[in-house]
Amino acid sequence: MIKKIAHIAVVVPDLTEANRFWVDALGLEMDRVEEVPEQAVDVAFLPVGESNVELLRPIDEVSGVARYLEKRGPGIHHICFEVDDIAATLARLKSFDIPLINEEPTIDRHGTKIAFVHPKGTGGVLVELYERP
Amino acid sequence: MIKKIAHIAVVVPDLTEANRFWVDALGLEMDRVEEVPEQAVDVAFLPVGESNVELLRPIDEVSGVARYLEKRGPGIHHICFEVDDIAATLARLKSFDIPLINEEPTIDRHGTKIAFVHPKGTGGVLVELYERP
Repeated sequence: MIKKIAHIAVVVPDLTEANRFWVDALGLEMDRVEEVPEQAVDVAFLPVGESNVELLRPIDEVSGVARYLEKRGPGIHHICFEVDDIAATLARLKSFDIPLINEEPTIDRHGTKIAFVHPKGTGGVLVELYERP
Repeated sequence: MIKKIAHIAVVVPDLTEANRFWVDALGLEMDRVEEVPEQAVDVAFLPVGESNVELLRPIDEVSGVARYLEKRGPGIHHICFEVDDIAATLARLKSFDIPLINEEPTIDRHGTKIAFVHPKGTGGVLVELYERP
């Protein structure tokens, strides 16, 4: 089951400039900034309702997010849904021949299971799924 | 105040094909499809938590959404936030010189006040704001 939109991730070249819109002008709150070394990004977490807007700032020039920014410019990068059973969700996607970036979930340092669905299979949307521990 | 993510809008060329991913494979429920003549789209509403995924299918070839699909291909079109006071939110955005597509809200047939913020001012994200009646 899909529980909610966990976050919308927006790739930005600069967090200070991005905060001028998202925090100062729009009025979202900045909860925290975390470095996520495995994706080579700093992530700013802006809670909104039961979801977050996540601002992704590449910290190198070769990561997937950095190349996305270089190629497509700033904007929405992906949408993440929280699911209650990621293994069951991935099995169902496979049964429909939806191409997955992660055939098996990866597990982050918080114990969250994460998998990305390829935009080829979703109609052009990079979809992340996660299951909390 | 920003209350929640109201919806994520995804532009699709065909609703039946899109439902194969979003409903059949991913497992979201299809609540309803509405024609929105003022934007020349059919909209499929897929509730998820307190939000919706909205699938936008252009019904002509000249509307803004149709031209977006032609130019950029299918994918995420915009993100909509529900606000408690759209006039106050727009005033604050103007005070930060954020360019707006709608300087004043439009009102849809349900009485909802709607305004779009220009992607030039948001870092590449088309942002919709709405206030329920």
